[in-house]
Amino acid sequence: MKPKVSIIMGSTSDLPVMEKAAALLNEFEIPFEINALSAHRTPREVEKFATNACENGIQVIIAAAGMAAHLPGVIASMTTVPVIGVPINASLDGMDALLAIVQMPPGIPVATVGINGALNAGILAVQMLAVGDAELQKKLSKYKDNLKQKIVEANEQLSQVKYKFKTN
Amino acid sequence: MKPKVSIIMGSTSDLPVMEKAAALLNEFEIPFEINALSAHRTPREVEKFATNACENGIQVIIAAAGMAAHLPGVIASMTTVPVIGVPINASLDGMDALLAIVQMPPGIPVATVGINGALNAGILAVQMLAVGDAELQKKLSKYKDNLKQKIVEANEQLSQVKYKFKTN
Amino acid sequence: MKPKVSIIMGSTSDLPVMEKAAALLNEFEIPFEINALSAHRTPREVEKFATNACENGIQVIIAAAGMAAHLPGVIASMTTVPVIGVPINASLDGMDALLAIVQMPPGIPVATVGINGALNAGILAVQMLAVGDAELQKKLSKYKDNLKQKIVEANEQLSQVKYKFKTN
Amino acid sequence: MKPKVSIIMGSTSDLPVMEKAAALLNEFEIPFEINALSAHRTPREVEKFATNACENGIQVIIAAAGMAAHLPGVIASMTTVPVIGVPINASLDGMDALLAIVQMPPGIPVATVGINGALNAGILAVQMLAVGDAELQKKLSKYKDNLKQKIVEANEQLSQVKYKFKTN
Amino acid sequence: MKPKVSIIMGSTSDLPVMEKAAALLNEFEIPFEINALSAHRTPREVEKFATNACENGIQVIIAAAGMAAHLPGVIASMTTVPVIGVPINASLDGMDALLAIVQMPPGIPVATVGINGALNAGILAVQMLAVGDAELQKKLSKYKDNLKQKIVEANEQLSQVKYKFKTN
Amino acid sequence: MKPKVSIIMGSTSDLPVMEKAAALLNEFEIPFEINALSAHRTPREVEKFATNACENGIQVIIAAAGMAAHLPGVIASMTTVPVIGVPINASLDGMDALLAIVQMPPGIPVATVGINGALNAGILAVQMLAVGDAELQKKLSKYKDNLKQKIVEANEQLSQVKYKFKTN
Amino acid sequence: MKPKVSIIMGSTSDLPVMEKAAALLNEFEIPFEINALSAHRTPREVEKFATNACENGIQVIIAAAGMAAHLPGVIASMTTVPVIGVPINASLDGMDALLAIVQMPPGIPVATVGINGALNAGILAVQMLAVGDAELQKKLSKYKDNLKQKIVEANEQLSQVKYKFKTN
Amino acid sequence: MKPKVSIIMGSTSDLPVMEKAAALLNEFEIPFEINALSAHRTPREVEKFATNACENGIQVIIAAAGMAAHLPGVIASMTTVPVIGVPINASLDGMDALLAIVQMPPGIPVATVGINGALNAGILAVQMLAVGDAELQKKLSKYKDNLKQKIVEANEQLSQVKYKFKTN
Repeated sequence: MKPKVSIIMGSTSDLPVMEKAAALLNEFEIPFEINALSAHRTPREVEKFATNACENGIQVIIAAAGMAAHLPGVIASMTTVPVIGVPINASLDGMDALLAIVQMPPGIPVATVGINGALNAGILAVQMLAVGDAELQKKLSKYKDNLKQKIVEANEQLSQVKYKFKTN
Repeated sequence: MKPKVSIIMGSTSDLPVMEKAAALLNEFEIPFEINALSAHRTPREVEKFATNACENGIQVIIAAAGMAAHLPGVIASMTTVPVIGVPINASLDGMDALLAIVQMPPGIPVATVGINGALNAGILAVQMLAVGDAELQKKLSKYKDNLKQKIVEANEQLSQVKYKFKTN
Repeated sequence: MKPKVSIIMGSTSDLPVMEKAAALLNEFEIPFEINALSAHRTPREVEKFATNACENGIQVIIAAAGMAAHLPGVIASMTTVPVIGVPINASLDGMDALLAIVQMPPGIPVATVGINGALNAGILAVQMLAVGDAELQKKLSKYKDNLKQKIVEANEQLSQVKYKFKTN
Repeated sequence: MKPKVSIIMGSTSDLPVMEKAAALLNEFEIPFEINALSAHRTPREVEKFATNACENGIQVIIAAAGMAAHLPGVIASMTTVPVIGVPINASLDGMDALLAIVQMPPGIPVATVGINGALNAGILAVQMLAVGDAELQKKLSKYKDNLKQKIVEANEQLSQVKYKFKTN
Repeated sequence: MKPKVSIIMGSTSDLPVMEKAAALLNEFEIPFEINALSAHRTPREVEKFATNACENGIQVIIAAAGMAAHLPGVIASMTTVPVIGVPINASLDGMDALLAIVQMPPGIPVATVGINGALNAGILAVQMLAVGDAELQKKLSKYKDNLKQKIVEANEQLSQVKYKFKTN
Repeated sequence: MKPKVSIIMGSTSDLPVMEKAAALLNEFEIPFEINALSAHRTPREVEKFATNACENGIQVIIAAAGMAAHLPGVIASMTTVPVIGVPINASLDGMDALLAIVQMPPGIPVATVGINGALNAGILAVQMLAVGDAELQKKLSKYKDNLKQKIVEANEQLSQVKYKFKTN
Repeated sequence: MKPKVSIIMGSTSDLPVMEKAAALLNEFEIPFEINALSAHRTPREVEKFATNACENGIQVIIAAAGMAAHLPGVIASMTTVPVIGVPINASLDGMDALLAIVQMPPGIPVATVGINGALNAGILAVQMLAVGDAELQKKLSKYKDNLKQKIVEANEQLSQVKYKFKTN
Repeated sequence: MKPKVSIIMGSTSDLPVMEKAAALLNEFEIPFEINALSAHRTPREVEKFATNACENGIQVIIAAAGMAAHLPGVIASMTTVPVIGVPINASLDGMDALLAIVQMPPGIPVATVGINGALNAGILAVQMLAVGDAELQKKLSKYKDNLKQKIVEANEQLSQVKYKFKTN
């Protein structure tokens, strides 16, 4: 089974954040690969990966990096596969990584999610794959219903909180 | 020909920025629609649009808004179609819009591009549509080559700049 | 006794912050309800709540959310009841939530209090209810006198701090 | 006819921003007064105004200031009447004024609107007055419908924008 | 012995920071007083203090506050005695307090020191008192020499750090 | 008549801002000098100035600089005379200059005023000189009364603004 | 004459800023080349340039870019030649470019100068070349003396500014 | 063996950060010295060091400081030796130190690395020394290969992470 999504992170220290993306893809039964490649320390490996991604059957790339986070943009510059960027909070609350990923120049977009937003990167990848895939769309709808269900249950817990003048 | 991409903006004052996305889609011969819908002023129209987008054949949504920019996130919460968010610089250099779009909670991603990044939103939409569309992939590759060509030509202009100790 | 104030939070994880608002309303013997509703995960429940709030007798809404905090603005867009927004510090020291709540576009105000400012949200709700309610005004005045009393007592503690050249 | 709303600004140079609040109140036929009082240059006048506001029949105060914007908080500390704070952009894009108004300590809330958000301050004042005033509620609903109407009409303009592959 | 310097803090929770100012004044044998007064909770006490400071012989005021820190500016507006403002880090790393203290409007300066800079506030107060007091000037010079001495001694410790290619 | 206050600016391009300080000192009939000295381009002249300031009779120094604004801190490190720092807005809205001036390390305070706050620097200098100078105190009080008078007159202009429902 | 310094900019629109670096190198009679290469649009040309820079005799690289400025870091990752990074103000006052250049991960430094700091980049390049080049050191010393001379002359202009109580 | 690189830090409390620079220089067998000198507490020692650095054979200076970090700029103003500035995170996440170091005025550059970027400062120093030193260039290339090797090995660890739908 060839991977459809490739998760790339700038450093293995990003794994505790990024495994949420992996778990989400696993939950949706999307074949994926996960690698550490640094835009700065292994630039040629990054180039090799990015230029071959499309013909290797990769349909979406999730790239995570912190600080002066170049990895998502560098990959995006070498492929037509859509790249989802995840800013990692490694300094300055993640603001440096966010700006270094989202503020791409005209011509080379990176689909940026929130700081440390690995779960959302995974969901976004599934949404892209679901374009024209009715079954995956259905799974996504079910996933959303579950999200709603959780907050409905949480709400029931709230009704247990007791105050004299509370009325629900 | 039914639209595949829907461009939504929070206010018609965003049009001068957003028409770059429209022009890009036009250049790629992607059928699209363009509308102004406000998350705050026309919430029911937004809901109607978002909940029906998928079955209406919309495959990618581009949503632009400024200030406390809720439109992209609100639409994303009501559909499984991927939503590209464009922060509009209407105050605070666009930082308020960027944060209000990109920092979505777990479960509801918005694929955020840079501040006023309408062109990149258009390209990203094409990249999503090109997943599994070999011809569109080819057009994208050609588009990238053109970007490169422009900078090569610009470089030739630089060679006209004269300094005594300049050597190229 | 029907609730006059409705406290809504985007996630039950906001409860430790928001219970200060609940306790304050309890102290003032204002009937209230408290619920978790997410602008993004339960958009239809939010709409149902907001559009019916006024005829259900809700006079003030307190809405809390973190990150790209849309909940207060989304509710405000669907009701004429005044909405007090509480930015929750879930990332970036709460700056993302503050901007996503306070920077509302013309036409749809949210009465924003400080980051994690649940107590102040409760007091502000009471102040709104006290418009034209002389008894509630009196309670508010007494509450303010108590605030003053606490700092006067704290000041007495300061007089215990000993330095040779301290003179009070 | 005694004023129900009092608009206070820290400097008459704030008038071009604040007259939107005045015009809105006028449109809703709410009697109001408008004055310039500086927390720093006329502290005793501010105190006199604030401590007497309630018994003078003022039901909502709108206070605007820029830079280290103390006026709204200082007034709020001396009255039980709800105070709406408007941060004026006089430096640092208005961020200094926003933080100096919204980040009030526990006990003394200011209902803060967006930077230069005078119109929203006016609407929020009407929303507060409309608590328990069915007629004013109705006017507010009509006002909201007009906001929506404007964006609907704007949308019609958008349909005039012509692209070859545009479909709406 | 009447106090020459008055240390005012917005809350007794600021004492752990502010006692460095007290200790410094003690070290210089400057008579001082220390009180908690809140611009928002005890506005009349603040006014009474500020308007009488000059004739009570207070020559310098040190005022500390956090968040929307109004205390230094409010005091400065009611006296001709120079006011040193100390921004307390209670939220947003102290940036809100810094801006709310330093960005005073024309006419009412506050001599602002760094975030949590209580020691420097104490030294600055001594520098102001030393204008035209030769003996205090001499003490200040000695104090500076001690600061230098400490870093010279610290440097000696550095010379103990051993590396093969280190040469000092 | 020897100067009591020395105004130093990092560049003559700061003069349009700083002449407000000079004009204020002139108005108070305080003898002063005004020079351009750069912490970075003329470090030895800065040192000579700072180390001799006290014995040359300088009682207060006003130092202005932009960007990485070192001038006020460098001068403060070489004298016991109080130094008032004025951050000049030359880039980043003046935030770089503000932080580079106000965030001095323990031991070397700079009395910082707001960005471009030259007038306030002048007033603060007068307040320092007025410690123990009853006549100067009186002038300061009169100056404050004038500030108040201006806002009172401005208020009268506001009473000319006409709205149907305006009541003052 | 082979170039010793290579000026690379991400876009020819950066030329008005970067020509200050070229002029400075010209003034110091350092042979240099100047090119536009984009980390994102011409990644392979960037790689070819960077990997060959050292053996082509380039001793210092000056790289300028705006927004999510990856060019300096990408070049630095592919060469051992020192890279000077110039953040260009193209959005957000240049803060995005500054953070995307300076916050490089461990192992790959970029010698960053201030926002739009092209002149300083040129001087820094000369300083690096002057390591072990006595003649270039001498030229640098003379250049610094000229900087000082300019401020001394500027100071003379200041002495023309007339105030009644000005004393120098 | 005389030192070629001088590491200066504003306070010995910076040593835990800065010893990474020392260790790196040691690894490259570059003779160096390490001292604590404060721009504010020992200005004359700083001047003596900086003005003599060049003739003492120092070829690169690494200067670290926090808060209003003047040390690197002050040294740079007194020598033609290139100065590498390391912003230390002592407050505000290090943003104050970064701006106070990088935003130097035209004429006096500081080669700034990232916040707490001591290792990168060391590498940059070696890169400067390697200009025209083929052997040092070779060592640098080997160092870079090691960086790459580490990430390659880290990547092997990633292959141990097991998911059902993971494919590499």
